[in-house]
Amino acid sequence: MALYDMLVIGTGPAGQKAAVQAAKLGKKVGIIERKEVVGGVCINTGTIPSKSLREAALYLSGFRQRTLYGAEYRLKQTITIDDLTFRANHVIRKEIEVVQNQMARNHIDLIFGEARFVDPHQLLIRHAGTSTAHRAHVILIAVGTEPARPADILFDDHTIIDTDGILSLKHLPTSMVIVGGGVIGTEYASILATLGVPVTLIDKRPRLLEFVDAQIIEALQQQMADIGVTLCHEEEVVAIRKEADGQVTVSLTHRTPITTATLMYAIGRIGATKNLNLEAVGIKPDNRGRILVNEHFQTSVSHIYAAGDVIGFPALASTSMQQGRHAVCHAFGYPDHTDTGLLPYGIYAIPEISMVGPNEEDLAKAAIPYAVGIARYREIARGQLIGDETGMLKLLFHRHTRALLGVHAIGEGATELIHIGQAVMAYQGRIDYFVDTVFNYPTLAECYKVAALDGINRMPRPWPQPPKDPET
Amino acid sequence: MALYDMLVIGTGPAGQKAAVQAAKLGKKVGIIERKEVVGGVCINTGTIPSKSLREAALYLSGFRQRTLYGAEYRLKQTITIDDLTFRANHVIRKEIEVVQNQMARNHIDLIFGEARFVDPHQLLIRHAGTSTAHRAHVILIAVGTEPARPADILFDDHTIIDTDGILSLKHLPTSMVIVGGGVIGTEYASILATLGVPVTLIDKRPRLLEFVDAQIIEALQQQMADIGVTLCHEEEVVAIRKEADGQVTVSLTHRTPITTATLMYAIGRIGATKNLNLEAVGIKPDNRGRILVNEHFQTSVSHIYAAGDVIGFPALASTSMQQGRHAVCHAFGYPDHTDTGLLPYGIYAIPEISMVGPNEEDLAKAAIPYAVGIARYREIARGQLIGDETGMLKLLFHRHTRALLGVHAIGEGATELIHIGQAVMAYQGRIDYFVDTVFNYPTLAECYKVAALDGINRMPRPWPQPPKDPET
Repeated sequence: MALYDMLVIGTGPAGQKAAVQAAKLGKKVGIIERKEVVGGVCINTGTIPSKSLREAALYLSGFRQRTLYGAEYRLKQTITIDDLTFRANHVIRKEIEVVQNQMARNHIDLIFGEARFVDPHQLLIRHAGTSTAHRAHVILIAVGTEPARPADILFDDHTIIDTDGILSLKHLPTSMVIVGGGVIGTEYASILATLGVPVTLIDKRPRLLEFVDAQIIEALQQQMADIGVTLCHEEEVVAIRKEADGQVTVSLTHRTPITTATLMYAIGRIGATKNLNLEAVGIKPDNRGRILVNEHFQTSVSHIYAAGDVIGFPALASTSMQQGRHAVCHAFGYPDHTDTGLLPYGIYAIPEISMVGPNEEDLAKAAIPYAVGIARYREIARGQLIGDETGMLKLLFHRHTRALLGVHAIGEGATELIHIGQAVMAYQGRIDYFVDTVFNYPTLAECYKVAALDGINRMPRPWPQPPKDPET
Repeated sequence: MALYDMLVIGTGPAGQKAAVQAAKLGKKVGIIERKEVVGGVCINTGTIPSKSLREAALYLSGFRQRTLYGAEYRLKQTITIDDLTFRANHVIRKEIEVVQNQMARNHIDLIFGEARFVDPHQLLIRHAGTSTAHRAHVILIAVGTEPARPADILFDDHTIIDTDGILSLKHLPTSMVIVGGGVIGTEYASILATLGVPVTLIDKRPRLLEFVDAQIIEALQQQMADIGVTLCHEEEVVAIRKEADGQVTVSLTHRTPITTATLMYAIGRIGATKNLNLEAVGIKPDNRGRILVNEHFQTSVSHIYAAGDVIGFPALASTSMQQGRHAVCHAFGYPDHTDTGLLPYGIYAIPEISMVGPNEEDLAKAAIPYAVGIARYREIARGQLIGDETGMLKLLFHRHTRALLGVHAIGEGATELIHIGQAVMAYQGRIDYFVDTVFNYPTLAECYKVAALDGINRMPRPWPQPPKDPET
């Protein structure tokens, strides 16, 4: 039995970053992985594969060329699953290598096997029929999630699949119903539609992704409809039946039943905690297997932390990494300077969405007097060059101080673009920064200037200052 | 004869932005264009066409797919000039519309014709055989440049062309010699090579683009060589001869002569000032037709300003816009808050280059103690996803204060990426900002965090602060 300063359960983004952080602080660290390869859902079945599929779909479908060559343009008329997963497999292999090297370089013990609590400081790790026990002063649970697979749905991994199942499909489906309009459901719906698959997305809420700015979501929904996604809001699935001909029939609360070649069940994921034997330490996961933590990511047992998807929203790789790091800093008494008010969100639908800071609804609720400035990609040269005529950047700023409060973007490169505004917000900058700044031409970054000027021009005159820029 | 507050000569980036700025300040403005369409070289023969060609070349050549599908991958085996200019023409039309609308919306008189000084406040504009005179309190010369066409070079617009000539070629050349390794020569060399044209680039200096960081240029030159550009440094052309078979033979100072199907003469451009009758106002352009100005862009006649390419380096659309605005603000007594120490540079070669702030050579010369942090695209997930394995982001920061001093990038999206660092520099931020910041995953923006950690890790220990992030 080895004694570690810290044991981490799970090698996804939260686990990786936590382990490396602890190692950098001079701690003896072990990290446990139950699968054959490191990386967790992020690398192997989730983030990386879906983003690879997305890139392949955009390229192979000729999506970005359609404003130039017409809506019917396709690079490949017949796109196969192999075309799509070729890229994903390449990237997955590379990323696994990167993580393994990072662990090795930082002298982190990589322990394969399934971990199970024996007591609050001891884990039993079972692997290939043998069991090894390890102890640690601090333990981090970063086991992530797995798809919820309700017993009444007859998953068969080719006509009725969960969100991990798309990579193992043999053919591109001829039609697809996706149940659940969360981040994963929305991303796959738009990717499949881009590839020409007729997609129906069923969600019980009145709109997709309720944590995102309403105007951005309206734009997303419009564009998803344009590429062939049928959106069924405020709708629930009553029954899913497999027909004799292999088709699947989906009965709904309100609408007539839908028949589809393939159905993807994408209603949430559950924390992968069931084999951890949490009872031994007195931690009670919720009914979706998720673990409750405080602001430092401590569970009800103070030296046992949990981070990443297993603690719930937002379940993004980027925030999971930060949570892992924060947990370690807290456990070993180091400060963490991350400003969690500035966490960005990135949603890799087609089009891409990203945001930082509160949205209009948040500001209205908080009764903060705000103003809005908008730039559309089609107004700027770079938007024209890349053929994205629907992209949009929206700046929210304080009506009196002109402090930048939030940035919300939809369109190609949105997840990159957001970080410019995030930096300005971190320094309590005003939107005037964008007016006074020179941007490379032609770039999407110019949207910041156009949006800032739009915002200033829409404010009641007299302006607090003379206008200093003529972009509009 | 109309009396204007301001007359602007030229509708390129400097002229456009100056005119709109003056209009926004409530001034009566006229803008003069000698060509049939607005936009200047930027829209019609320079920036926009070359960036459109670049996008088309990247797409049609399948360049970004080669790390996945092999170096021999091509989307189109036979790419025609029409394939390439189709996109350019589309974007040019859109951009002309944007500019025309902007002028109209701001009630700027758009005057077509060739302007000529009568006296320091009066211009005679000749158009279609008629002449009209207009007076103005302030005049801005923003006439841009035209290719230098030395008398001893027999330009024929199909085998011996200038840098504006590429758009009017009938066929993609079977081989190309480019004389002059400035921004334009470098951009076209890499675009043509990406399309599979064997390119030889001849330059008298020991390396390309001497104002760019040496390590970035080394990477650029390596990658240009990899895609088939033969670089001949410290070499000059002695003679250019057209052979009977239509080929062109180029004799050089040192190397053996080169025979090529097409030659592009890209040694500088000259200010388009020769028909302005500058003698009438006592302004003397230099031997390349360029006008000397002070820091407020005033010529030797204080109410006559000059901005944009006509005043020389850096001759980028982005800086030209800023110059036009600054000139107007100065002329009408308004402050201009632009920090010119933070002007970004963007070079749209393949790969793209961008930078803000001093480079290593600048810092060494100024004896500023600096440190370096580097991230390579291949180390981050997004780099893998887009297949850019050679991209690089380099942060320069103060060795003692850790203030961010400069950002230098090469690789896809470099011109966008640079603006994150620019914002941090504007607020006198330290590289620690990137360590404490959460970036969307997967993005190229993550390079900032990896580079910052690389820089911190390379500094002598003990660190000023405990490390707070585990990315490396």
